[in-house]
Amino acid sequence: MQDLIDRFKSGEQRALARLISKLENEAPDREEILKKLFHLTGRAKILGVTGSPGAGKSSLVDQLAKLIRQRGETVGIVAVDPSSPFSGGALLGDRIRMGELSMDKGVFIRSMGTRGSLGGLAKTSKEAVKAMDAFGMDWVIVETVGVGQAELDIMHVANTVMVVLTPGAGDAIQTLKAGIMEIADVFAVHKCDLPGANRIATDVDIMLDQQGNQKDWRPPVIQASSAKNIGLSELLDKVIEHYQYLKDNGLLEAQRRERAKSETLEVVDYRWHQLVREHTNYPGKVSEMLEKVANMDMDPYEAASSILEFVTTNFDWNELTNPGLK
Amino acid sequence: MQDLIDRFKSGEQRALARLISKLENEAPDREEILKKLFHLTGRAKILGVTGSPGAGKSSLVDQLAKLIRQRGETVGIVAVDPSSPFSGGALLGDRIRMGELSMDKGVFIRSMGTRGSLGGLAKTSKEAVKAMDAFGMDWVIVETVGVGQAELDIMHVANTVMVVLTPGAGDAIQTLKAGIMEIADVFAVHKCDLPGANRIATDVDIMLDQQGNQKDWRPPVIQASSAKNIGLSELLDKVIEHYQYLKDNGLLEAQRRERAKSETLEVVDYRWHQLVREHTNYPGKVSEMLEKVANMDMDPYEAASSILEFVTTNFDWNELTNPGLK
Repeated sequence: MQDLIDRFKSGEQRALARLISKLENEAPDREEILKKLFHLTGRAKILGVTGSPGAGKSSLVDQLAKLIRQRGETVGIVAVDPSSPFSGGALLGDRIRMGELSMDKGVFIRSMGTRGSLGGLAKTSKEAVKAMDAFGMDWVIVETVGVGQAELDIMHVANTVMVVLTPGAGDAIQTLKAGIMEIADVFAVHKCDLPGANRIATDVDIMLDQQGNQKDWRPPVIQASSAKNIGLSELLDKVIEHYQYLKDNGLLEAQRRERAKSETLEVVDYRWHQLVREHTNYPGKVSEMLEKVANMDMDPYEAASSILEFVTTNFDWNELTNPGLK
Repeated sequence: MQDLIDRFKSGEQRALARLISKLENEAPDREEILKKLFHLTGRAKILGVTGSPGAGKSSLVDQLAKLIRQRGETVGIVAVDPSSPFSGGALLGDRIRMGELSMDKGVFIRSMGTRGSLGGLAKTSKEAVKAMDAFGMDWVIVETVGVGQAELDIMHVANTVMVVLTPGAGDAIQTLKAGIMEIADVFAVHKCDLPGANRIATDVDIMLDQQGNQKDWRPPVIQASSAKNIGLSELLDKVIEHYQYLKDNGLLEAQRRERAKSETLEVVDYRWHQLVREHTNYPGKVSEMLEKVANMDMDPYEAASSILEFVTTNFDWNELTNPGLK
């Protein structure tokens, strides 16, 4: 494990890959790894890219990555696809996808699918982003398919969120409705060579005007095409501009602090959750209360009060060192 | 409040509506209401209907509701739309939608949009289903747009899950990929008058065969059209057949018991979550630890251990009676 961390710190990509797999597979030393990573994070510019399926996010992200490389910076990509059961070194996907990027040592791509729960996917994706950040990538791009809750969660790891829309399919408005408007820092109207691109750009602009932006940053709406190589440089510039805006206004630091705090509270909740579930694995007060509810002899709220009291009163500090609880 | 419950018990629909609003608005007596409802639940047949946007779920549900009424039973409908910011008595939506159903006292429709978080929507939607069950509806149909995590959560309240697919749009396979295959008890190939319906039905059948069903129940695949009034009766019969299958094999009771238990544990987690957040509202150990993490003087995992220990050690049983924690 220390050896792995050493190799990771020396910039060996295989160590990065191995480390992400350990996080994803909930290896026993997972938390130890995360502890070590923590102090190395906070240096990368993290870009989140989301939008409807079929919006061409992957191609767009690949083009942006190439542009970043041309500008002399390194980039990690975390491609999250909740509809895919495949994860990890993803034998085919990543290789095919990387294409000309695959030989480039300054790029690292990792695709993540749903192994367990969607909630679990959000968790491990965020951890993968952190690993790439800690690894020393100048940029990390996290790309998610769809606009569900898990995807929104994943976006919380990003400094800048790009929402990708495309002409046609009528899903532009769908996307905007689903609470994604609020999290967008930059809008990309992708496949802008198709008819209807102007219309979408205008629609988004109108919505932005209507909503009467309270923030100082007004999300720019950029038309782009990765196939036709249009607007990509401008798009990346806007992302950098947003990052600079955050930095100059102390918002980057505020964001980092706020996230470190909520992440800590998430760990607290997660451990509590595990602790309570442990109790359900053997006979005792907790199992007994649950049986009562199942028998309709007690309502869930009364039972919950008893369980909460019992677990806290009988909380064994030493249990926390039990790896099973981590 | 007692008055409201009495009116609810006597079958007054306005009391049902008011009660659901209270649950949705997190009224202070929310938990008291849920306690009272608990013992009245478990009698309705609960059907969950999900599928891609545009699959025509609403029309299908309306037709099934009419059919249920024709057969002399009552029905409640909870229509969940995470993309809609509107909820409640939904001045327009529900009325328009109810159409000819609106004058029927044996039907109650409630639409729910995203007021707060998507997670919150799943919670209140499930509570609305319970309220309709407790109210004495023979059937409750809960219909969700999309196939995200929140939607899957909502389906956990159903006895029978119907997945609605439509020809074209290529989203049939998309839907199947997103983990929805596993939760389907009945497949409806809707708009079956459109070209491609047979193909989809066949695809689903093949998938079902390939996956080598471990369960005794093999999800039937029914072609239906609400516009052309095709296959609706057959669809409802299959739902009833599935319900009967659950009942005959003790699975309905097992499902109810299991859900009552996990619901209780959810309440435990939710209260714990609130309890910890309360601590962050004032200076003290918890806030102090969080500051340390924000300053990068401590990692989130070490801080989480301290917080967990502190909150459990200083757990005040009486705080539980504080409405703010409910």
